[in-house]
Amino acid sequence: MTDTASHEKVRALDSDLRRRAAAVIPGGMYGHMTVGYLPAAHPQFYERSEGTRVWDVDGNEYVDFMCAFGPMILGYKHPAVEAAAQAQREKGDTQPGPAASMVDLAELLVERIEHADWAIFAKNGTDATTVSLMVARAHTGRNKILAATGAYHGSAPWANFRLDGIAPEERANLHYYEFNDAASVERAVDEAGADDIAAIIASPFKHNAGFDQEEVDPDFAHRLRAICDELGAALVMDEVRTGFRLNHGGSWEPLGVNPDLSAWSKAIANGYPIAAILGSRSYAEAASRLFVTGSFWFQAVPMAASVATIHALRDEDAVATMERVGNRLRDEFEDLARSSGVEICQTGPVQMPNLSFPGDNEFVKARAFSAAMLERGVIVHPRHNWFLSAAHGDADVDRFLDAAEDGLRAVLESG
Amino acid sequence: MTDTASHEKVRALDSDLRRRAAAVIPGGMYGHMTVGYLPAAHPQFYERSEGTRVWDVDGNEYVDFMCAFGPMILGYKHPAVEAAAQAQREKGDTQPGPAASMVDLAELLVERIEHADWAIFAKNGTDATTVSLMVARAHTGRNKILAATGAYHGSAPWANFRLDGIAPEERANLHYYEFNDAASVERAVDEAGADDIAAIIASPFKHNAGFDQEEVDPDFAHRLRAICDELGAALVMDEVRTGFRLNHGGSWEPLGVNPDLSAWSKAIANGYPIAAILGSRSYAEAASRLFVTGSFWFQAVPMAASVATIHALRDEDAVATMERVGNRLRDEFEDLARSSGVEICQTGPVQMPNLSFPGDNEFVKARAFSAAMLERGVIVHPRHNWFLSAAHGDADVDRFLDAAEDGLRAVLESG
Repeated sequence: MTDTASHEKVRALDSDLRRRAAAVIPGGMYGHMTVGYLPAAHPQFYERSEGTRVWDVDGNEYVDFMCAFGPMILGYKHPAVEAAAQAQREKGDTQPGPAASMVDLAELLVERIEHADWAIFAKNGTDATTVSLMVARAHTGRNKILAATGAYHGSAPWANFRLDGIAPEERANLHYYEFNDAASVERAVDEAGADDIAAIIASPFKHNAGFDQEEVDPDFAHRLRAICDELGAALVMDEVRTGFRLNHGGSWEPLGVNPDLSAWSKAIANGYPIAAILGSRSYAEAASRLFVTGSFWFQAVPMAASVATIHALRDEDAVATMERVGNRLRDEFEDLARSSGVEICQTGPVQMPNLSFPGDNEFVKARAFSAAMLERGVIVHPRHNWFLSAAHGDADVDRFLDAAEDGLRAVLESG
Repeated sequence: MTDTASHEKVRALDSDLRRRAAAVIPGGMYGHMTVGYLPAAHPQFYERSEGTRVWDVDGNEYVDFMCAFGPMILGYKHPAVEAAAQAQREKGDTQPGPAASMVDLAELLVERIEHADWAIFAKNGTDATTVSLMVARAHTGRNKILAATGAYHGSAPWANFRLDGIAPEERANLHYYEFNDAASVERAVDEAGADDIAAIIASPFKHNAGFDQEEVDPDFAHRLRAICDELGAALVMDEVRTGFRLNHGGSWEPLGVNPDLSAWSKAIANGYPIAAILGSRSYAEAASRLFVTGSFWFQAVPMAASVATIHALRDEDAVATMERVGNRLRDEFEDLARSSGVEICQTGPVQMPNLSFPGDNEFVKARAFSAAMLERGVIVHPRHNWFLSAAHGDADVDRFLDAAEDGLRAVLESG
């Protein structure tokens, strides 16, 4: 721990809320936002947010490089998105049926995502991946699914990475391959049986939490597409974490590879709760046979917010902005680490940076780094990729680099 | 069809949106809000909402007796709920962690729901039922679930009432009993094997869509509790549709029967998207072992809205209001039907009324009734229970009864 008196923050209100939460929430918190296993410097409860800045309940200000784990792709309280949401809110949100914003959004996604001919909207990324597999099963009349080892596709029982609370039958149809390893896909096909494979699900790149990230080998992407075509199975792309950050369109479009179905959520409405299942024409009939729904799946405000978000993403050339800022962060941080004598490993696309320290298998250095960054007012996660938004600029990178001097010193001291 | 020239509504914009939707949404719409199989009078797209009134995209005004299929329990745009939501929105909503509103809400639910010692929040009712079963499985180390035939517990594969897109293994652990039939529960226990039953899930009353509703036999409720205790299985109450409408607390509290786990959504935040899993102390450890999460499960605005909703529900004595208005509607509608010479069957709690016409197995009369009601500006569903809110008052009942004269005439003419 590198807390210094000059930077140590007051966390009285956060501590008080944690005590209260421990009494009424199992384990005190759950899911990806729990800080139970993170350095004490990591705030659990937040008071407000604006642009790239967030304030914890004790009033400490941070530059946020997590973007709420992805959703905030234009920055908190983006004016155009908030204006669109407010205009829709004044009319209606949860009503006896959808608003026109649902059709506007479906049309816009079909226009912007090359493989998409139709859309179904839901709330969770997990809804989107699960419904995609349901469409694939309904279309093919088959049951088996191939997924990459360790890939995160949600917290539904079929996708969960823990076994607590899961019946074995709920995962019985899953078979696993290694990302970027075509031979392993062929082995999984043999294991599952070529005639009963409904879908192969893949993330656009390997972003397993706690591991170095790995970008897709274009040959692997093409091979997955070819294998699905040979099998008559659906290629399902999980864009929940990547959508609109890597490309304004499907993430593998620049490679010339299109999926049959894709699952979207997180950033598509800049923080408003929505998910989408997109599909190509030949899967529409199967999709129309499903009964999939939710009490809030037809909410008008998130759909209006999503339309505004997608327009702003292109109008602001968001991907290029995130790449420019992300490249500067990566390059200058690399230089800083080298001059500090700390070996670092930066992986993944620059707009979804992942940091590790070679040999730091217990995340001792990673925790020391993020703890020191937090004390200096920069939120980064010790074992999950970070997220840039189009609102991040040079001032944010400057602040990161300034804090990183302390962060890297803390890494040296943690050894 | 009883459309008369004097009442027939213009639906040009709705028709146009339906045409556009058919091109980009499978089947033109999906889930419980599709009107594809309903009378043409039923609008698909809505423009705005206020109190008990909604306007379709063509500007036609309706008194809404569906309450968005349940969520609107205080009426659209309830001032106290909107003020709380707006105050939180100005601070933050989707952030790198929850806000204090999460703890406030968990404490409030634990205070108001007798069996609850803790809460986990999610987005969909389906999330809440699914996570409840995960907690039950983690706690018991068992796999089998008993559910009532035809009961709706969500659209996840294990709960879906269609088979399209579902692998048989996903439902392999489900065994079925008949609601209000203790002997059928015992048969299901034998079938599943007493040693491997993790949970029995039940709705507070039988509200299968398309059927007359049936209130719970108190002896059955007590027997379910006793069977779960004998088995060491969890009693899981699905309060998604009923929560806070039947009782300010758990729906079976007035019977003296408490579940171990309960699933909530729909009305708990008056239209804001949130769900909750509530549990008793002995299930907290199992719950803390699960990894369950979603990108928007920690949103601060729906939690602040839920706190305000729950306070307003008690401050406004919402259950008593809905019962008074619901009883008047039921009694006077019964009188009107009798004097009109139309046999009707009204079932379910008065605040969640269900209408059927004896012998109308193809819903011909039900469709004629709802079509005529829609033309007269009253939204009721031909085969799903309706919902009252605390905003519904005598003026809304008057309008219902006035329209129902045409509705009942249409039923007579449909024969």
